[in-house]
Amino acid sequence: MREIKVAAAQLGPIQKAESREEVVSRMLALMEEAKTAGCNLIVYPELALTTFFPRWYHENRAEADEWFEAEMPNAATQPLFDKAKEYGMGLSFGYAELTEDGHHFNTSILVDPQGKIVGKYRKIHLPGHVEYEPERTHQHLEKRYFEPGDLGFPVWRTMGGIFGMAICNDRRWPETYREMGLQGVEMIVLGFNTPSVNNLRGAEALNQRLFHHKLSVQAGAYQNSTWVIAVAKAGSEDGNHLMAGTVIVNPDGEIVAETKTEGDEIIVHACDLDDTVFGKETVFDFKRHRRIEHYGRITAQTGVILPPED
Amino acid sequence: MREIKVAAAQLGPIQKAESREEVVSRMLALMEEAKTAGCNLIVYPELALTTFFPRWYHENRAEADEWFEAEMPNAATQPLFDKAKEYGMGLSFGYAELTEDGHHFNTSILVDPQGKIVGKYRKIHLPGHVEYEPERTHQHLEKRYFEPGDLGFPVWRTMGGIFGMAICNDRRWPETYREMGLQGVEMIVLGFNTPSVNNLRGAEALNQRLFHHKLSVQAGAYQNSTWVIAVAKAGSEDGNHLMAGTVIVNPDGEIVAETKTEGDEIIVHACDLDDTVFGKETVFDFKRHRRIEHYGRITAQTGVILPPED
Repeated sequence: MREIKVAAAQLGPIQKAESREEVVSRMLALMEEAKTAGCNLIVYPELALTTFFPRWYHENRAEADEWFEAEMPNAATQPLFDKAKEYGMGLSFGYAELTEDGHHFNTSILVDPQGKIVGKYRKIHLPGHVEYEPERTHQHLEKRYFEPGDLGFPVWRTMGGIFGMAICNDRRWPETYREMGLQGVEMIVLGFNTPSVNNLRGAEALNQRLFHHKLSVQAGAYQNSTWVIAVAKAGSEDGNHLMAGTVIVNPDGEIVAETKTEGDEIIVHACDLDDTVFGKETVFDFKRHRRIEHYGRITAQTGVILPPED
Repeated sequence: MREIKVAAAQLGPIQKAESREEVVSRMLALMEEAKTAGCNLIVYPELALTTFFPRWYHENRAEADEWFEAEMPNAATQPLFDKAKEYGMGLSFGYAELTEDGHHFNTSILVDPQGKIVGKYRKIHLPGHVEYEPERTHQHLEKRYFEPGDLGFPVWRTMGGIFGMAICNDRRWPETYREMGLQGVEMIVLGFNTPSVNNLRGAEALNQRLFHHKLSVQAGAYQNSTWVIAVAKAGSEDGNHLMAGTVIVNPDGEIVAETKTEGDEIIVHACDLDDTVFGKETVFDFKRHRRIEHYGRITAQTGVILPPED
């Protein structure tokens, strides 16, 4: 038994006008709840410190830099690191990262119970678009404000297990989980900000969006025999609604905990990392069953290559 | 609109003593039902002509050759081809294939409405084991009796669309769907024979097995925006129970039809191949969103390579 008690810390909406300090105080309140519940790890969503700013179009991209963090930790977030260390609790959250040399990433970090950043991940599967698209009900400009992550899908040995990270749209791509599964990942933590309506197909509303989210996360967990902690920022940000659906998924792909609200809310589950062993040694024993000689297209081509016409 | 009306033709159990001719007459009865329902395509399960023989151990492997077909069509199966052609109906079913040069495969074929075999697929992800394993509640000797498929995951243009095939355990592997998705597949037909109890973990019983099956199929459909027709052989074969769970899944990953019994039963759905377009052009537009530079492990390594110990 290698039990780790996890708090999936969903955040309610963050309005444009809300400061980092206000958000961090909400995060600290959830951390205190997690402490009371005896948790060893708390996981916050993608872009946890600000509103989901890629919905706002700036002709001049540099204007969006106000949403980015040039250092981590910084003055606003230091209290999260201090309190987690005091509580002996690991920590993960997402933020917009501006590097010293001027690159922009959608990033998340993993902090160990000693307050040390042990892992950094930069979102690889950026959804959305680069330019303003008037036919959309709302903009989703991640491809404008971020570059695709340049760190691959690493995993880290910490807290007695093997951990990986992903961010939002990454969770819809089986390659995300498989890259980490091939490194023996036992727990993937991921945050998301997902509009509750498809901005190109209004008929695809909340229930179907939640279904697609859960389907992807549950399949990724099952097919790699890993825990997945998927954490939402939810609710209405300046009139733009994000879905909830924060879930803890076990290595059988089953949801073992789920939030009930669209606000700040933790859900807690004692996750035994040894529960990953059975799947990894049987149906998903990759060494015995995978046939990489037939997977060539997955890495040889990015897009579809149709079969020849008759 | 490119509508194709599909019959997923579940077969009930086939006992060891049952002849090919008896099974084919059951298959013809289902085909007649499909004709009455106006179907253009009928899909039968894996190893549709015989019992699921890999549960039976033969020390001398050649004794298992009685379950294999050396030609296709042959005398026993010719009526399927004739009737499908008469009805103008496409056809797919699985069988154990013995090649002229003595190779053994778990195979399925796709037959067009003119009765011509247009596609052949040989199962790549063979589950189970090679030798008799007394600790199992039942044997699953696919790795003993079959070689892994050597044809990759091709797709075929036929019946106005792009079709692919997979067999049973292939459906648990996201690589299966992705290989075909990267060729623009619009409908995947697959059959399965799945014991309703995990032979290494009795607590994993019918409900959980059905869940894993559906989860994998639905995720594969959604993440590649393709129809999937997944067809069971079900019920108790000489005391060994196979689960049902025959489903038709749309390109949103939703189950649109499902069998209610564990016997011979067709379910019918009019599948519009154009329903695959939206997903392929938006969230799963591979060309815009996939990042193959970060997928290297998927084809470079078969098994897990753990991160270094600290």
